[in-house]
Amino acid sequence: MVAKSKNQKKVRPKAETPLGFQDYFGEVHNTRVHMMNTISEVFNKFGFDPLETPAIEYLDTLGKFLPDLDRPNEGVFAWKEDEKWISLRYDMTAPLARVAAQHRNTLPTPYRRYAMGPVWRNEKPGPGRFRQFYQCDADTVGSNSVAADAEMAVLTSEILDALGIVRHNYVIKLNNRKILDGILVVAGILVEGSDADTALRGAVFRAMDKLDRLGPKGVRLLLGEGRLDESGDYTKGAGLTTGQIDPIMSFLELGGQSNENILNCLRDLVAETDIGSEGVYELNEILDCIHSQTSTSENFLIDPSIVRGLDYYTGPVVETELTFETVDSKGKPRRFGSVAGGGRYDDLVKRFIGQQVPATGVSIGIDRLIAAQEYYKPKKESALGPVLVTVMDRHRMVDYQKMVADLRREGIKSEVFLGNARNFGKQLKYADNRRCPIAIIQGEEERTRGVVLIKDLKLGSKISETASKDEWRSRDWQIEVKVADLVTKTKEVLARLNS
Amino acid sequence: MVAKSKNQKKVRPKAETPLGFQDYFGEVHNTRVHMMNTISEVFNKFGFDPLETPAIEYLDTLGKFLPDLDRPNEGVFAWKEDEKWISLRYDMTAPLARVAAQHRNTLPTPYRRYAMGPVWRNEKPGPGRFRQFYQCDADTVGSNSVAADAEMAVLTSEILDALGIVRHNYVIKLNNRKILDGILVVAGILVEGSDADTALRGAVFRAMDKLDRLGPKGVRLLLGEGRLDESGDYTKGAGLTTGQIDPIMSFLELGGQSNENILNCLRDLVAETDIGSEGVYELNEILDCIHSQTSTSENFLIDPSIVRGLDYYTGPVVETELTFETVDSKGKPRRFGSVAGGGRYDDLVKRFIGQQVPATGVSIGIDRLIAAQEYYKPKKESALGPVLVTVMDRHRMVDYQKMVADLRREGIKSEVFLGNARNFGKQLKYADNRRCPIAIIQGEEERTRGVVLIKDLKLGSKISETASKDEWRSRDWQIEVKVADLVTKTKEVLARLNS
Repeated sequence: MVAKSKNQKKVRPKAETPLGFQDYFGEVHNTRVHMMNTISEVFNKFGFDPLETPAIEYLDTLGKFLPDLDRPNEGVFAWKEDEKWISLRYDMTAPLARVAAQHRNTLPTPYRRYAMGPVWRNEKPGPGRFRQFYQCDADTVGSNSVAADAEMAVLTSEILDALGIVRHNYVIKLNNRKILDGILVVAGILVEGSDADTALRGAVFRAMDKLDRLGPKGVRLLLGEGRLDESGDYTKGAGLTTGQIDPIMSFLELGGQSNENILNCLRDLVAETDIGSEGVYELNEILDCIHSQTSTSENFLIDPSIVRGLDYYTGPVVETELTFETVDSKGKPRRFGSVAGGGRYDDLVKRFIGQQVPATGVSIGIDRLIAAQEYYKPKKESALGPVLVTVMDRHRMVDYQKMVADLRREGIKSEVFLGNARNFGKQLKYADNRRCPIAIIQGEEERTRGVVLIKDLKLGSKISETASKDEWRSRDWQIEVKVADLVTKTKEVLARLNS
Repeated sequence: MVAKSKNQKKVRPKAETPLGFQDYFGEVHNTRVHMMNTISEVFNKFGFDPLETPAIEYLDTLGKFLPDLDRPNEGVFAWKEDEKWISLRYDMTAPLARVAAQHRNTLPTPYRRYAMGPVWRNEKPGPGRFRQFYQCDADTVGSNSVAADAEMAVLTSEILDALGIVRHNYVIKLNNRKILDGILVVAGILVEGSDADTALRGAVFRAMDKLDRLGPKGVRLLLGEGRLDESGDYTKGAGLTTGQIDPIMSFLELGGQSNENILNCLRDLVAETDIGSEGVYELNEILDCIHSQTSTSENFLIDPSIVRGLDYYTGPVVETELTFETVDSKGKPRRFGSVAGGGRYDDLVKRFIGQQVPATGVSIGIDRLIAAQEYYKPKKESALGPVLVTVMDRHRMVDYQKMVADLRREGIKSEVFLGNARNFGKQLKYADNRRCPIAIIQGEEERTRGVVLIKDLKLGSKISETASKDEWRSRDWQIEVKVADLVTKTKEVLARLNS
């Protein structure tokens, strides 16, 4: 008794998914698995090998992979263990840099790997913004050829093709950090050949990155004094003069023209800088490489406003956007936006070994792509559940189990109803909830005659809600077959349902 | 300059996998993906639906899923976030119980789900003992039918079949916690119908669970005063008297006989107890259900020594062992042991909602099964790498990219060498490291004649290490084809290599 009253005092834990995380049921999971299989086939075709690193890394491994400076709410999940700080991986790039350094004597050079799996971000959750999500990355470590950069763009395009996203629904935008640096030299913010003021450069890049969201006026403010947004929050600007801002803005606003025109303008804009000229040259080479590999090159566009949020890029950058409009959970139209991005990061492995190792890669956001697929298959019916062998006589479980074993032996997804069999309505409700295509029934009467009933539940689903057990049994959306024919006839009905 | 000397002072992080974790490269990863696909097909055939919960749960969700009391080094990775303790999931059962409680109004009853993914344990790492590993679980929540328990055993057997593990190489051992409780009543440790002293029962069960490792003598000591092991560590015993220990030991030593004999002995042993008799009756029913579903029932053995470590089991328990001997990393012979286990846990969902929800499940250890597969395919050759288009002329990258695009269009895994092309030896070394089956070569001479060379690298691998660029090109393990025939001829050579 004492023990019992103790138990009653216990506070029950609340059954809830942790804040910012979600559970994936049935088909949502299947869709992602299917998509990841498709993507891994393309990765494989391109010669990338899989790599799976643990969810956990030492915190110092992450280094400057840490998130944007102007999003202070972002971060990693990190804690202390065995006197060392460890953390959940924030992306797939940091673990790759660690592996490339750790195994540099045995891995092939270049090392071409793909990685697919969850990453974790300690961000403030919001609608559609989760703390665990999947990334699919491909990277080439140990190549300074722009062909490796071009390949990332082509790879992305092939993946979108394989996923059934038609070419007029996406653009792959290309730019080069070297051209950005060239512009900064022209604007008098960088001195060519000397070390950059990384804080200032970062602030300028982040301002440029916001063209899409804030428009030219907003970017101007962020490049200059600062910007007060609608909510009253003030963002400090990069503090540039109008003379410095002007060349940056004319650079940013080059987008929307033909690649050739943009290249010509860029060439002129940064002509006096070595770094900028090199960037333009590379971009031209990348386009040539892309054209050699793909028949529809109109999807690949130079866009000077593509900066990419992360600090670590050193050369070509790529961002892939879906261009169609879709409807969000509140029914509002919404442009789809970015689903993949990447670029060259030549200094990441250097952090570990002190030696520069050129690398380039792309990261594909699988959750966005799943949402995009809904645009293509908006009315997709959810998959059918198992064939349900119903329990008419609880004491004959062994017979029902034998039926289901026979069905499974022929590869038919099936199960015996294992809940409370006394209430037949519960079996119907279950079949409905699971979207069972067929119910198998054998009561005492059928057993003595050596037959079973095969019910087509798709046909009967409309009336099943109200029917009593006897009514349900009498409908003509059923066939009676000999026990020996159960598997063959079930197969036939299933084939009809799937056709 | 100041910035530079700052950089030089920076301590480089060491590139290392965190202690107790590992990286999975290429084929090891592919093997697991393939195995998980096979397992998920069987889960699906049995009517289980996938569920994917996040890696993170609130710590109080884990509850008594926490590890064994006598392994204090074990634990979970847990930390405080947003003022709440969160942790990495320790197994797949705790998240399932949380989901079943949280979504009980919308999920079908019974809820049949499978889950596959990594779990994390904060244990002291050791050889073959990692802090992150994969589990594949199937559970039926909301069924008190022993048919659901029987199904878990049959499911395990079908999975082993699907993985190619022959039936004489495994046994599926069955027991029932209710019989164990009956024995405790007989031994005077439990009073039937009243609440058990869970601490004492736990100590007794854990002692029984060690029969395999410590033998009858060791178990006797642990049931009585305690045991001093070889290393000098003392484990406190359960403190039972000889009169209490004897019935337990005679129970434990029933194993090795026919199921029928064991059932008869068990029936006699616990005849005076309701709980024990119920347990024997259930075990008998489970065997009947198993026999109705499988042709080779000799793999299913009652074994009274099967207890299962975890406290939460309330009824039938199952453990699957591979019986063959294999060789460990040090060359020592080693019996393979447990690869799957599970049982009935009727009280887990109750923790959240105060209401009992019967549930049963099985957990399959994928890493052990991967190791087991090596026993079956010990000399499996590793998969071939991509067809390598070599770079003879760095300025013709666009042409080489076009070749590789043509090959990929036909589904041929291929890539252009993207490393330092000046050193041809590096291209050979790379091809060797990646196990490339074929190299495509087109130098200036071939280009002017409109041909390419297709090198069979498998044939040539023996001499490639020492050959110079010219020597290598002159070998007769190559064919010369027209550029237009590149794809067709490469396919032919690949088909020959794979045959």
